[in-house]
Amino acid sequence: MSEPTEGLTGPVEIVGTGLLGTSIGLALRRAGVEVFLADESPDHLRTASGLGAGRPATAEDRPQLVVVAVPPDHLGPVIRSALALTAAYGAVVTDVGSVKSRPLAAVADVEGVERYVGGHPMAGSERSGPLAASAALFDGRPWAVTPHERSNPDAVALVEELARLCGAVPVRLSPLEHDRAVARISHIPHLLAALAAGRLADAPTDHLALSGQGVRDVTRVAAGDPALYGQIVSANAEAVLDLLTEVRDRLDAVIEAVGDADRPRLELLLQEGVAGARAIPGKHGAPTRPTQSVFVSVPDHPGELARLFADAGASEVNIEDVHIDHDPGRPVGLLELTVEEGRAEHLIASLESKGWVTHR
Amino acid sequence: MSEPTEGLTGPVEIVGTGLLGTSIGLALRRAGVEVFLADESPDHLRTASGLGAGRPATAEDRPQLVVVAVPPDHLGPVIRSALALTAAYGAVVTDVGSVKSRPLAAVADVEGVERYVGGHPMAGSERSGPLAASAALFDGRPWAVTPHERSNPDAVALVEELARLCGAVPVRLSPLEHDRAVARISHIPHLLAALAAGRLADAPTDHLALSGQGVRDVTRVAAGDPALYGQIVSANAEAVLDLLTEVRDRLDAVIEAVGDADRPRLELLLQEGVAGARAIPGKHGAPTRPTQSVFVSVPDHPGELARLFADAGASEVNIEDVHIDHDPGRPVGLLELTVEEGRAEHLIASLESKGWVTHR
Repeated sequence: MSEPTEGLTGPVEIVGTGLLGTSIGLALRRAGVEVFLADESPDHLRTASGLGAGRPATAEDRPQLVVVAVPPDHLGPVIRSALALTAAYGAVVTDVGSVKSRPLAAVADVEGVERYVGGHPMAGSERSGPLAASAALFDGRPWAVTPHERSNPDAVALVEELARLCGAVPVRLSPLEHDRAVARISHIPHLLAALAAGRLADAPTDHLALSGQGVRDVTRVAAGDPALYGQIVSANAEAVLDLLTEVRDRLDAVIEAVGDADRPRLELLLQEGVAGARAIPGKHGAPTRPTQSVFVSVPDHPGELARLFADAGASEVNIEDVHIDHDPGRPVGLLELTVEEGRAEHLIASLESKGWVTHR
Repeated sequence: MSEPTEGLTGPVEIVGTGLLGTSIGLALRRAGVEVFLADESPDHLRTASGLGAGRPATAEDRPQLVVVAVPPDHLGPVIRSALALTAAYGAVVTDVGSVKSRPLAAVADVEGVERYVGGHPMAGSERSGPLAASAALFDGRPWAVTPHERSNPDAVALVEELARLCGAVPVRLSPLEHDRAVARISHIPHLLAALAAGRLADAPTDHLALSGQGVRDVTRVAAGDPALYGQIVSANAEAVLDLLTEVRDRLDAVIEAVGDADRPRLELLLQEGVAGARAIPGKHGAPTRPTQSVFVSVPDHPGELARLFADAGASEVNIEDVHIDHDPGRPVGLLELTVEEGRAEHLIASLESKGWVTHR
């Protein structure tokens, strides 16, 4: 860069105005940063700019930072071109792709690669396109920032500031570590959810009628766009294959244990799952705090949830999580309230004194 | 039975006073039915009876219905003995085990087997024991009722009435169909969740810091008691192995598709997952109604949820589901409200008019 960076003052150019690009534009505009937008699709560009995510970019623009927010298959060439086009004034270039080693490999030999620092906000949804965008999309989310060996430290700091300005929490990892991490915490769970869900596709209706919350939770992510997840998984093939091989070995072990009625071995494999489920950090990135659940029966019509939460709020017990259980055949819902350990009794007493039917 | 049943008038004897047995006792007492309790553990028996689930059984009792609520490994002998002990006055015997073919096979040759009808309430939790029990545990849940070829129709009707008296919705299936169904909608998802979770057990902390809601949902059930799930899966080995073999074939196909960079094949496998996720019936057992999500940023302290639900309630839009996203590093939560299709705009306008930051 021609001069030391004094924070992210803008302007920022965003290439690709889908869900992520448009949301970043909205978040930066909210923070008062000037934003230029570019997209191959004039429709997306018009929509994003109409939503207030920034104004269309021109050839004269000299952004301080370029954010590449295009589909995984296109990341390499677009980052390359952004580095070339901004060489004269030394803009920093980042991207928001779900995988980080492949785009880096595609630009590793490019002049100015020290101005490139990868990024990956851990946000998104089953929806896509600029109309699904929101300035609040990244609020409180982790945002992986993945410097490589030649990354300029000022460029790294600038991308971390982008994450913070968007309301996210930067988490620094190498591109390789990042890809191994997302294989483990995102791509493998997605593929296994798809395998579990796949077994339901042709199931008889009366079998599916027994579905509880468990199968709904396990299979929810499997509803995501197959084309997008196909790109993501393919771009991270190496890390994904390492883990899939591990999964296959363990699956073979489960099949053997069930087939041989080898109960201790089966329990050991299930115990691995318990340990893994417990390893996921709790809310706020802190180690998981012990919690308790309180179940409340709630009539399923407008106003009842409000009344419940008003009553729960009056108890002064902080609700850590909420889950509504989907129950077939009856106009009553079962609400699970998660509270810090030791607070359940107080909440139950408080709710029951107001006529709610609760249980632990 | 000596005379035609005129509904479930009681008394009912419950053998096994864990979570399910005690909850059934509480639900029946709530409905005004007399309940006798039996358990090998004097502690459990005392607790259950102290909670008001019924009084300890005596040798002189002549129950109309015996409910066997013991762990899967003990079902066969206990059902057998219940049929023998009540032969003189023809009580109906049911159980609440998670698997139905094996206990039936264990009693198929017993005199009085026509008085036995299996059952399986689709309720429970990661918790266990009488202290976790509640009269509301079965409210709105499916309760599989699994007659066999020789079941007396009056006995079947009586067990269905038990389900209804407990607040549940009876779903009639043959024992074999039931076992195939729960393999698909419960045991396979559980095992795959355990395999996904197992990969997290030794992951570096900074990898886990990127965890989002997806991996939490996929792995939640994997936290369940390995000894109990070991019993359940083993008791349903045949149906589980059929599906596990299918899963292994599909996993091999995924590994090949990723290894060969065969994108169309990978997408096809992911598409199976989408179809399966969509096949799960919606709330109230009805076909899934189309819904929309509204996301709201909520400060993480007591009272804010109450304020939000009061404001949401004032909008007159019925909230179908709620989910709090666990976000590391920031004292703000992201709440997902699911509403019927077409109602999101109205809810958003209503919430934003009251100062909430929302997005779709």
